Amino acid sequence: MSFKTIQWKNDCLVLIDQRKLPVEEIDIICSTYQEVATAIYEMVVRGAPAIGVTAAYGLALAARESDAEKSLDLKRDIIAASDVLFETRPTAVNLRWALERMKKVCQENLSLDVQSLRERLLEEAIKIHQEDIETNKQIGAHGAELINEGQAILTHCNAGALATAGHGTALGVFYSAWGQGKRFKVFADETRPFLQGARLTAWELAKNDIPVTLITDNMAGYFMRRGEIQAVIVGADRIAANGDVANKIGTYNVAVLAKEHGIPFYVAAPCSTIDADCPSGDQIPIEERSREEVTHFFKQKVAPEGIDVRNPAFDITPHELVTAIITEKGILRPAYQESIAKTLAAA
Amino acid sequence: MSFKTIQWKNDCLVLIDQRKLPVEEIDIICSTYQEVATAIYEMVVRGAPAIGVTAAYGLALAARESDAEKSLDLKRDIIAASDVLFETRPTAVNLRWALERMKKVCQENLSLDVQSLRERLLEEAIKIHQEDIETNKQIGAHGAELINEGQAILTHCNAGALATAGHGTALGVFYSAWGQGKRFKVFADETRPFLQGARLTAWELAKNDIPVTLITDNMAGYFMRRGEIQAVIVGADRIAANGDVANKIGTYNVAVLAKEHGIPFYVAAPCSTIDADCPSGDQIPIEERSREEVTHFFKQKVAPEGIDVRNPAFDITPHELVTAIITEKGILRPAYQESIAKTLAAA
Repeated sequence: MSFKTIQWKNDCLVLIDQRKLPVEEIDIICSTYQEVATAIYEMVVRGAPAIGVTAAYGLALAARESDAEKSLDLKRDIIAASDVLFETRPTAVNLRWALERMKKVCQENLSLDVQSLRERLLEEAIKIHQEDIETNKQIGAHGAELINEGQAILTHCNAGALATAGHGTALGVFYSAWGQGKRFKVFADETRPFLQGARLTAWELAKNDIPVTLITDNMAGYFMRRGEIQAVIVGADRIAANGDVANKIGTYNVAVLAKEHGIPFYVAAPCSTIDADCPSGDQIPIEERSREEVTHFFKQKVAPEGIDVRNPAFDITPHELVTAIITEKGILRPAYQESIAKTLAAA
Repeated sequence: MSFKTIQWKNDCLVLIDQRKLPVEEIDIICSTYQEVATAIYEMVVRGAPAIGVTAAYGLALAARESDAEKSLDLKRDIIAASDVLFETRPTAVNLRWALERMKKVCQENLSLDVQSLRERLLEEAIKIHQEDIETNKQIGAHGAELINEGQAILTHCNAGALATAGHGTALGVFYSAWGQGKRFKVFADETRPFLQGARLTAWELAKNDIPVTLITDNMAGYFMRRGEIQAVIVGADRIAANGDVANKIGTYNVAVLAKEHGIPFYVAAPCSTIDADCPSGDQIPIEERSREEVTHFFKQKVAPEGIDVRNPAFDITPHELVTAIITEKGILRPAYQESIAKTLAAA
């Protein structure tokens, strides 16, 4: 991987500022959990797994910031910081998952002295970081089996090294398959309104020498109908127990188009993205972001005053449209209710 | 209508510069046919019917520019100018239709002296202009029957007053229904890469007090699935004899989504958009425009170097996905091969 998404360096969290890509490569240094919360909210870092890792480091920073002298007081500060971090992107299940894991480590180590507990929390954040890279590589190894030589595969948004701790989920499949010597090309949807496809996916694939063709979101059907796309692989922000998938707005459009053209639609995500407590996509909250993301473009106004604007950040793709879910534990197939339960039970 | 798309004024063609909307309302004045060709190519004016009217005035200007002293020489200059104008936007059938009509008038009036022939050509351009408005109002009257009180209707790109001589095709249906007292709302796809929906459709509907909600192209499926959209009406750049529809890129995506959700998909277009010589959508050329339209946004770079980019300006929606075609002669239903042939024969 030719760049680092998230680094722990000199006791600070260092993030590539993804808002500035692909024009500039600038790092943002966070030394407080509030800075981490702002970085997540303002999308310096985005992508469910990357947000989880970032939030874990956020709690390690909160532990350091806390002037608690007893572990029980530190715990209270950790819980308060966790609440702040959770509110930044409520749809991303990995965020909650990482925060819960950190709070659990805190709870289970209250017998440590406060300084040792701080160290233990940092250790756990580093572990979450490393595990995420390892998990992605396992997803990549499983997913690579689904890619055939010479294919063109469409992806939406950025489920890449930039969206994770460093290898990627959907794009991790591409990196792994490419590493095995398979040759193929990728179509990247630009992914309005935030342009993660144009700015991030195209950037990181090109940076790693994988051929990528950028299209606008509304061109996918055109190229599918012409037979120029043979598969779709996307990431996920949350997967319900029945296999319904919450992912970046526009994913559902692509899934419907894939069905119409008889093209397989794959979702690549770690098991931490699966929310076993969530029975179906109907229970997944969809955040609506600000109207300015749609009406303005890098501060350039592109829409008139006096109109309504809607800006849901995610959509739900019903499990019926999902050909397979690629996880670190293997490739899950329908019926998902069963295959998901079985996989999570074995974990 | 609260603005004028195309005006003949002081012996010049005056066009609203649609590239500057909605931020600025600026007129472009064309006094030569080369300026008209540039205005069409650079999308100062766009939309198949508006391009047709504009090109007709372009030939009136070419006639004035020509130093021919004999009508036969003027005819040669008109043919040369017509070739230049035709090359600007080869997918738009109205462009060819308007140029052919002007050349025919020229041919049929070669017995006139050269100055009278010039006047005759201008007269014909004005007639094409007025007929287009009248045609749009008839389309609007027919289409209004398909709109029900309280509905939300999605449109893509801009098939409005800005795309025509002054009333609109798809949006003309909205203006006519609204004028009849029906109340409804419109979802406008922003329509990447050129943002005709955000910049033009949202602008002209708001300017005429019709409630409009702007969304990005990849949100249409989300709102359809939630039951928030009850119908789709779009324009057309060319309709083949079998009912296949060439329209702005992304129209096909919307048509597939409408089918998936059981929502009617209507196309509103004048009969001049129907190309009886074109048996199906497979024979319609699709222009690919420059990569910069996708990689840059108002000169702001949004994609990295070293990647491929595709930028088809149109797509083909197969007739199977079209619920009805709304023309000035009435509402055409499948089988289109028959209903189109019958309508054109009666014209």
